[in-house]
Amino acid sequence: MERTSVTETGFGYECSPWELRWRGLDVDALQRTESAFALSNGHIGMRGTLEESEPRGLPGTYLNGFYEQHELPYAEGGYGYPEEGQTVVNVTDGKVLRLLVEDEPLDMRYGVATAHDRVLDFRSGTLRRVTEWSSPTGRRVRVTTERLVSFTQRAVAAIRYDVEPLDEDLQLVVQSDLLANEPIESDTRDPRVAAALDSPLVPQFCQAADYQAVLVHETRASGLRVAAAMDHKIEVDNGLRTRIHAEGDLARLTAAVDVRKGGRLRITKFLAYGWSAQRSVPALRAQVEAALAGGRQTGWKGLIAEQRQFLDDFWATSDIEIDGDPELQQAVRFALFHLLQAGARGETRAIAGKGLTGPGYDGHAFWDSETFVLPVLTYTMPDAARDALRWRHSTMDKARARAAQLGLRGAAFPWRSINGAECSAYWPAGTAAFHVSADIADAVLRYMYATGDIEFERDCGTELLLETARLWASLGHFDHHGHFRIDGVTGPDEYSAVADNNIYTNLMARRNLSAAADSCRRHPDIAARFGVDTVELDTWRSAADMMALPYDQELGVHPQSEGFLQHDEWDFAGTEEEFYPLLLNYPYFDLYRKQVVKQADLVLALHLCGDSFSPEEKARDFAYYEARTVRDSSLSAGTQAVIAAEVGHLQLAYDYLAEAALTDLHDVHNNVRNGLHMASLAGAWQGTVAGFGGLRDHGGQLSFAPRLPGALRRLTFRLTFRGTRFQVSIRHTHATYQVLDGPTLDLIHHGERFTVTAEPQQLPIPVLNAGPPPSQPAGRAPARRDASKVRPFINGG
Amino acid sequence: MERTSVTETGFGYECSPWELRWRGLDVDALQRTESAFALSNGHIGMRGTLEESEPRGLPGTYLNGFYEQHELPYAEGGYGYPEEGQTVVNVTDGKVLRLLVEDEPLDMRYGVATAHDRVLDFRSGTLRRVTEWSSPTGRRVRVTTERLVSFTQRAVAAIRYDVEPLDEDLQLVVQSDLLANEPIESDTRDPRVAAALDSPLVPQFCQAADYQAVLVHETRASGLRVAAAMDHKIEVDNGLRTRIHAEGDLARLTAAVDVRKGGRLRITKFLAYGWSAQRSVPALRAQVEAALAGGRQTGWKGLIAEQRQFLDDFWATSDIEIDGDPELQQAVRFALFHLLQAGARGETRAIAGKGLTGPGYDGHAFWDSETFVLPVLTYTMPDAARDALRWRHSTMDKARARAAQLGLRGAAFPWRSINGAECSAYWPAGTAAFHVSADIADAVLRYMYATGDIEFERDCGTELLLETARLWASLGHFDHHGHFRIDGVTGPDEYSAVADNNIYTNLMARRNLSAAADSCRRHPDIAARFGVDTVELDTWRSAADMMALPYDQELGVHPQSEGFLQHDEWDFAGTEEEFYPLLLNYPYFDLYRKQVVKQADLVLALHLCGDSFSPEEKARDFAYYEARTVRDSSLSAGTQAVIAAEVGHLQLAYDYLAEAALTDLHDVHNNVRNGLHMASLAGAWQGTVAGFGGLRDHGGQLSFAPRLPGALRRLTFRLTFRGTRFQVSIRHTHATYQVLDGPTLDLIHHGERFTVTAEPQQLPIPVLNAGPPPSQPAGRAPARRDASKVRPFINGG
Repeated sequence: MERTSVTETGFGYECSPWELRWRGLDVDALQRTESAFALSNGHIGMRGTLEESEPRGLPGTYLNGFYEQHELPYAEGGYGYPEEGQTVVNVTDGKVLRLLVEDEPLDMRYGVATAHDRVLDFRSGTLRRVTEWSSPTGRRVRVTTERLVSFTQRAVAAIRYDVEPLDEDLQLVVQSDLLANEPIESDTRDPRVAAALDSPLVPQFCQAADYQAVLVHETRASGLRVAAAMDHKIEVDNGLRTRIHAEGDLARLTAAVDVRKGGRLRITKFLAYGWSAQRSVPALRAQVEAALAGGRQTGWKGLIAEQRQFLDDFWATSDIEIDGDPELQQAVRFALFHLLQAGARGETRAIAGKGLTGPGYDGHAFWDSETFVLPVLTYTMPDAARDALRWRHSTMDKARARAAQLGLRGAAFPWRSINGAECSAYWPAGTAAFHVSADIADAVLRYMYATGDIEFERDCGTELLLETARLWASLGHFDHHGHFRIDGVTGPDEYSAVADNNIYTNLMARRNLSAAADSCRRHPDIAARFGVDTVELDTWRSAADMMALPYDQELGVHPQSEGFLQHDEWDFAGTEEEFYPLLLNYPYFDLYRKQVVKQADLVLALHLCGDSFSPEEKARDFAYYEARTVRDSSLSAGTQAVIAAEVGHLQLAYDYLAEAALTDLHDVHNNVRNGLHMASLAGAWQGTVAGFGGLRDHGGQLSFAPRLPGALRRLTFRLTFRGTRFQVSIRHTHATYQVLDGPTLDLIHHGERFTVTAEPQQLPIPVLNAGPPPSQPAGRAPARRDASKVRPFINGG
Repeated sequence: MERTSVTETGFGYECSPWELRWRGLDVDALQRTESAFALSNGHIGMRGTLEESEPRGLPGTYLNGFYEQHELPYAEGGYGYPEEGQTVVNVTDGKVLRLLVEDEPLDMRYGVATAHDRVLDFRSGTLRRVTEWSSPTGRRVRVTTERLVSFTQRAVAAIRYDVEPLDEDLQLVVQSDLLANEPIESDTRDPRVAAALDSPLVPQFCQAADYQAVLVHETRASGLRVAAAMDHKIEVDNGLRTRIHAEGDLARLTAAVDVRKGGRLRITKFLAYGWSAQRSVPALRAQVEAALAGGRQTGWKGLIAEQRQFLDDFWATSDIEIDGDPELQQAVRFALFHLLQAGARGETRAIAGKGLTGPGYDGHAFWDSETFVLPVLTYTMPDAARDALRWRHSTMDKARARAAQLGLRGAAFPWRSINGAECSAYWPAGTAAFHVSADIADAVLRYMYATGDIEFERDCGTELLLETARLWASLGHFDHHGHFRIDGVTGPDEYSAVADNNIYTNLMARRNLSAAADSCRRHPDIAARFGVDTVELDTWRSAADMMALPYDQELGVHPQSEGFLQHDEWDFAGTEEEFYPLLLNYPYFDLYRKQVVKQADLVLALHLCGDSFSPEEKARDFAYYEARTVRDSSLSAGTQAVIAAEVGHLQLAYDYLAEAALTDLHDVHNNVRNGLHMASLAGAWQGTVAGFGGLRDHGGQLSFAPRLPGALRRLTFRLTFRGTRFQVSIRHTHATYQVLDGPTLDLIHHGERFTVTAEPQQLPIPVLNAGPPPSQPAGRAPARRDASKVRPFINGG
């Protein structure tokens, strides 16, 4: 039994390799656990609220791409400022199953919960819950539930709800709802956004019959239509009475029955969701009723079995095993599970910064998706990576229009968006962060290298590459000395903005320009269709060849952007801990003009464009920026783990990896209530596979440079590349490579080329003496990871 | 008679040396003429609306410092963003005098106006009007009005209103109003601002008796209280019946009388205004009734006589005579008259960007005041300059608090404000434009040099200098090489922002630091009171000595800011005329990253800090920036005139001077309807006195380098300096200097020191061969000024 290996961590969750469990009820912790216990398949997302609906943190049912829009206010407007914002909408809630025990509602704030146990199972892909509850008048029941959002039937979710009287015969009434326009609390201070999200759904249709009901709504401003349907299977001995009813915002099945002690009321609730910007009410109703019929046809057991099979396949391709740190083991699987949930069935919709786990960041997708999440999916679930890139491609017209509005050529992808239109209201950290377009190109290139998917390249890849290359060609210019400069843009670090020749941006643009030229050469017909001629190709190559890359000879380091190294140092010693994150306590102007780094920027270039730096440069640059990076962004720790490992500071890499992996489980940024941080979860994979595994994929050549920190005994991960599934298993002195499935592959291990086959190959790990680790700003060093000191603890008590 | 010299210009106004006249009614032009015909004394401002109130452009009665506040909305907020905006309020309108002729209201949109003539008289300081009107049923009357806002009694305005039947006996009814909360059209798109300005005044008190009435109101949010009172003297043969009435937003005196042909109804309306953030309703009522009593005691003739005397004194000290360009002569006097109106009785209130002539810029004051307007006042009405600086000093606590909020020391004065609190909602072009604090210091220094006003220095000057010096000391830092850098700030040019080492800013900061150190040395007791010790003084001097001033050896020019010269060139050839002003058609990011200059920045440094550049550097820098400056700001032409003249391009200087001087009369920026551009009006003086006169005051030494463009025969201007009033008269070959009043002065003429006395001294003007003039961006050269080609034209017909 797994349960025998359970230990408790200091943050309420029990430590276990394949599940996440929280024992007991902690109302104050509900909102953050709802995020961690969220279920999603990338199309539907349901937060882990209790079936009874209350007590609750923040209810949330989301459909990928479904949003309301609202005016963006500006006290001082400007040309090209986006006028409309988009915010993810809490759609019709189908999770609700209310229980009355002899007319007393099961509400865990009243009576006594003698047991209450929730567990997210990474292998079954379900959220289970067992509650034993004694009502204020002493009636005792056991409620056992399990729910899933199906990976195999993307429009379908299902809940099994069992109630057992524990001491006596009891009259039970269950109300199973579809509930639209739930009142929710909003963090927004903007009255226009609040107004847009107050009862955002206008009822258009409702119908109920037998055990089945459907509600159709439309948003006021964005004009999107959503249909939700439910059906039920009810298993009980006898005496069941039911009633079904539907009105504008509510459909309700009421089931009443007397259940004997030892008996059980079992309700299986099937849910289906669909939305469209175009389909009519009848068409959308038909769509969800058909999905519902499919789900019912498969049945609960069938859905459970499909879910398990899907996850078995996933883990076979992507699992990471860590010996020596059980909490990290759990966190890494938690991360992979949620990344899978975010991306599995997105199917040409975005992967939002929070996935579908909460309303944070308004449900927007950012560059995080391509830079942090897609590499994970590319090497574990390449079809999901492809679908996410197809989403970007589907927004190409908006990106072209945005570029034209900005006076540029090609495509300028948005900094933040749900539907592909720019929603960033602060241009220095939004529009000016043009690197998002190169990040997309890089993800395209990585995906194409990893899969050789010519069909994708012809359908989407070449176009994405060439239109982003056009952006760079029009955004930069050749100076008097022939260097290609990209001025006035913002790199990944949000504590600097609108600077010249950001090295990360320039290196990524260089790769983008070269890759576009290569792809156009491979597909001259596509190039011709988009009007790319040899003059344009030559310009791209010249710009790439002559890309400006500032370097400070005196200091021997690369400036993040031109002039950065001449800026004043931040007074870290004088900055108390409560003043972090700095952006809440210091003005942008002060942050922008000093050498303080929110998140890896030049260090991210050391990772993604590592082929442009010598090992000595990497060591010097890393040390320089370590002393100035405060990690006020959850995007940073994973990248710092990767480069710390590369330059040989393995304990530091381990510290950063743990921070990235535990960001959400430990609520490091105190905002998990609004959803999980997908990029940070991806950082757990990056820190493991690119960090201790040393995975790099420059130019499509996979290479590894594995090294383990002292605390870990063994690290094993699985990847898929060009149809080959293989495994890398790392110990302190050697690494073992083995193909699990598919043809052999040429790889590089610590600089030496070799061929990995079905026969395990053991290769030695060379010794690296990195010297003393670099220092961090006062108080901003990551927590020293020591797995042996994780305190046994239950539910934060 | 002046009228014999009248010619008509192409813009509706008749050309005349001492007045501005518009003949006939042009409803479409009403709004802009209301700005030009505005009367003000710096305390009260009244737009030039017709007494009948309609037709109208935009009614407006303003009290300096009286505003409503409203929340500033941000789609994405940030630390240190101002939360409250301020907007000037149209207060109770006392200009209204409605006439009924045999029950037909005089409304010039109906019936026929056989004559209609308005004239702003620069010597009487009144706005006169004669209208002959035939009602739709053929009754004819002549209405003659004259109004003034008293320079001598700052709370008082008065209107004389005469009506004469022209053909027959007529029954006349006049309604004289105090009218609060007039409905006005607003340009704002922000519903919160619009809501704040919709009926902003809450009635608190009203009273009427005999011919006198008073209304007291309070603003909703800012909590300011305003009182307006009126009294009347009515002169008519007999049969007069009157009624007076007051309610919340209206007080009305109704006068009805039968007037015989050849007779006349004369109403003299006295108005008084007062406002306070603290005084009670009875106190404020008493204040305006007392002011009214004073005005009545002086009487109409007395007010007219005082006004004339005040203006005679003003012109004696400040007049500019231009021979050879009558339109420019008129424009320069118009400019001086409005600058006087804006500043004469401000008395520790701000001089707003639009003065009190319209609601533009929300009624805010900017750096324009200190940099452009105060130099004019310093040398013509030094007490007004002092009072404006006392306003800045009165906001010192807010400026210190703002600096502290931004993590800086000393005082950070606001980019835009009415009450001294920062109201700029876009920090890259607001908060980051720290130069405003050095501009204030420079104005303090100039005023002290020009007056030797030790009392001011001890009360305000030293404190202003030392607190702004502290700002610079904390804003900049010494780099590895010991240079003092000021990074991440915005200079005058709003088409660049947040750059390092803006030369204008650094030079002005250098002067500020040195001047503060000097003043602290002169007043060690004040220095001690503010805790300035020798260490701090040494830091200021070191920072000043080691100020970073980038220079490009290769190009031989100064970069406006570091990196500017490496930026891409703007595609001027590809920018059609309708795309100007660029900020309405291109995003900030694009403007900021290219070599395109909205307004003089480095060129303003060449003027104000001309002692830091060699003549050759000035010539090269001017030529370089001329080719890149588009003058999308009304602040620019005056400065370009000054430097064009200095480097010897006299026709170009003349072109720029004309543009600056005629900005409002020709409505160059198509926004005069919202108020006059005080800085551009000041630019007319700058272009004349600092341009063709070559006035400089570096270190308190006045110097001149006069030169006339070919078209002008003679230019004479008067200045006051350290109690001496003197005159400079320039011809092509020589200039004549003469003290009019006061002791002798040491001056410099073209580099040669001399002493000016009561005896006229004629000094020769050396020949300067400047070579060909520099070019401007395609389509952005100023109109070539040719006074002989000003077309005779009436009212735009």
